[in-house]
Amino acid sequence: MTARTLIADLAAHDAGPVKVQGWVETVRDQKRVQFVILRDESGSAQLVNPVNDDTAETAASISALMHGSFVTVEGELKHDERVKLGGLEVKIASLVVETTALDSPIDAETGIDKRLDHRMLDLRRPEAQLIFRVQTAIEHAFRTRWIDEGFIEIHTPKLMASASESRAELFEVPYFETTAYLAQSPQFFKQMAQGAGFGKIFEIAPAFRADPSFTSRHATEFTSVDAELSWIDSHEDVMAHHEALLTDAITAVVERYGDQIRDAFGIELQVPTLPFPRISHAAAKQIVEARGHTIERADGDLDPEAERRVSAHVAETMGHDFVFVTDYPDTVRPFYHMRHGEGLTSSYDLLYKGTEIATGAQREHRVEVLEDQARSKGMDPEELSSYLDFFRYGVPPHGGFGMGLARVVMLMLGLPSIRETTYLFRGPTRLEP
Amino acid sequence: MTARTLIADLAAHDAGPVKVQGWVETVRDQKRVQFVILRDESGSAQLVNPVNDDTAETAASISALMHGSFVTVEGELKHDERVKLGGLEVKIASLVVETTALDSPIDAETGIDKRLDHRMLDLRRPEAQLIFRVQTAIEHAFRTRWIDEGFIEIHTPKLMASASESRAELFEVPYFETTAYLAQSPQFFKQMAQGAGFGKIFEIAPAFRADPSFTSRHATEFTSVDAELSWIDSHEDVMAHHEALLTDAITAVVERYGDQIRDAFGIELQVPTLPFPRISHAAAKQIVEARGHTIERADGDLDPEAERRVSAHVAETMGHDFVFVTDYPDTVRPFYHMRHGEGLTSSYDLLYKGTEIATGAQREHRVEVLEDQARSKGMDPEELSSYLDFFRYGVPPHGGFGMGLARVVMLMLGLPSIRETTYLFRGPTRLEP
Repeated sequence: MTARTLIADLAAHDAGPVKVQGWVETVRDQKRVQFVILRDESGSAQLVNPVNDDTAETAASISALMHGSFVTVEGELKHDERVKLGGLEVKIASLVVETTALDSPIDAETGIDKRLDHRMLDLRRPEAQLIFRVQTAIEHAFRTRWIDEGFIEIHTPKLMASASESRAELFEVPYFETTAYLAQSPQFFKQMAQGAGFGKIFEIAPAFRADPSFTSRHATEFTSVDAELSWIDSHEDVMAHHEALLTDAITAVVERYGDQIRDAFGIELQVPTLPFPRISHAAAKQIVEARGHTIERADGDLDPEAERRVSAHVAETMGHDFVFVTDYPDTVRPFYHMRHGEGLTSSYDLLYKGTEIATGAQREHRVEVLEDQARSKGMDPEELSSYLDFFRYGVPPHGGFGMGLARVVMLMLGLPSIRETTYLFRGPTRLEP
Repeated sequence: MTARTLIADLAAHDAGPVKVQGWVETVRDQKRVQFVILRDESGSAQLVNPVNDDTAETAASISALMHGSFVTVEGELKHDERVKLGGLEVKIASLVVETTALDSPIDAETGIDKRLDHRMLDLRRPEAQLIFRVQTAIEHAFRTRWIDEGFIEIHTPKLMASASESRAELFEVPYFETTAYLAQSPQFFKQMAQGAGFGKIFEIAPAFRADPSFTSRHATEFTSVDAELSWIDSHEDVMAHHEALLTDAITAVVERYGDQIRDAFGIELQVPTLPFPRISHAAAKQIVEARGHTIERADGDLDPEAERRVSAHVAETMGHDFVFVTDYPDTVRPFYHMRHGEGLTSSYDLLYKGTEIATGAQREHRVEVLEDQARSKGMDPEELSSYLDFFRYGVPPHGGFGMGLARVVMLMLGLPSIRETTYLFRGPTRLEP
């Protein structure tokens, strides 16, 4: 039995017998010769069947072939530079239809909603598969640095007895005799790992927000990239780690997929320079005003348009796609962010090409200060007791960040929505497929 | 400012000024000299403070030190082979208490339930941290092979519109105007990736079972290790991949942590030989009977005692910790497992030291056969329509496995329960911390 050859490996394969397996992208059923474009996870190739008495049976099954059918083909590989698709073709000796397929209800013109209804077929587009290969490379680059630096991987529970971030946007789950909540972030549990003396930890896992909004950046379930580090001196240490991770990831993506990204998305992906620019929240607001945008939010925090203008300013004046906006006022930050005087926090948001992709901070590790900060936010320390209890037994200075994976990929590839970069998007009105 | 040195790196550090940071494990407060055992994520070391007029202030803070407090210490490193703990000590120049700690409510004698109540403190035990370092190494070994072999990482949704495995043991989540269910496995979605032409995929992610049982092997939330491969010839291809992954993982763990595992758990971890033994389900039942155990289960499937006896047989006769039990009857397998005649399925369970850690199979990819198999299980194909629809648009032959990560670690380290190898265990009566 001939072993399968990936289509991408045919170019380096000797002429002669090969077996290829994939799905039928196109059939050109001509009188004297039939062509089948076969695609697999590595690429596409032309199969050819000259029609004559010897090939009549194969010819009949090719004539009946539906696009999208999965087939196994054995044949003769011939290198021929006149063939546009890779300079090679396979002359079919045998063709076995493994599964036939209904006609695809979507095509290149179909809108995102209907494409998501038929996500399996939508993902057959080579650009869609490239998105997830890029995502795989990004995650592997992150994890490689984490492993090299001695981080421990943790899997925090997604079923919690209380809210991890806020009571709003919380999914409830009836849980035996009680009620559980789906984790909005691994925040409490990755801080617990600091008190446990784990030093440095990471997790890439789902997080859940019962968020009724329908923007291009929000989902009810998303993949959160989280790291937390002990013994930092300030949020500056977190940012240094964060920018190193992203630079590793983009370097890996450019090396492996730079050409394919240019072809598929028209993006010339560049490795960013280090360090990423830093702009204080106060300075960012001045930039936004100077660029003619008035922030309407009651709390004065940057709105999406303000984020775009800050990024535009950084791109124009510093030639950089990333910017850390630092030192947010405590009024717009959670109680557990460390404060460093004058109402400012040791925190940051990371903007990438105009959109927030991550929030990071040094956390407050002194329980009496934490209690004060909770009270100043109108929270009752009693309700936070199981969280605050961690700190009563000792937690070292620490900080970390949470980052939305689908946003990173969306912005990296210049795509319009996380619906394109999430394997199966979940929104208020979408639970299927 | 002196940079922090990890305690494990002190041995290779020149004598002279160092900064170490960690938590206080022990204080010996003697009249003329004080000793502090400081632990960090890398190990423990002895700090010393000779009591005299110059050190009175430091002496007072050491006398007041609570176990578990996190401290920053600068001092003079001295290599001295008479010191039992690593042949070195640090003479304290300054000691800053970063956070004090309440007295620990648990100690070496505390039972598992109370330890889980105070899991943060429980995880400070060096053996507990070793468990999660081993787990990190296992996952990294898995992912390294996957990346090398061109797998795509996917993140499947945990919120689903219908059950992924069975209607039993399903968590319901009120979801806007409808109801969602927490995924019991990524089964459907990783099969969807096959129809999408992804070829080979992996995921390590939470899965949820509303399982009311209280055994040492069950949890309501667990980390599932999943892979799925297109274009396999049979479940044999899945097993070959599966055993290679586990062998990679154990090799990595032995190299990196073999000595520490021997010291902490008294286990001499061995790299398994390839291939792992295979025993058909029918042969396994005969072995169990010959070893004097009668299976009481109505469906005739192996019960936990039967699994232990099969593993004992394999250990005694083949000297192997692993065994694939193959070709389960279709009566005890889900409808989506491929059948290969005489009521048998192309499936397997993987037993490790007497306990099932994984289930794998070739999946049925022909929709009309799938419908028949669903009907023969008393299921209504109508109810499965969103799953079956995948197959109507073409899915190649494929198979894969799902494996419980905490079980693998438990058995590898000879621990009594997955409560020890899960970061934060979730059971019917445990949602906290």
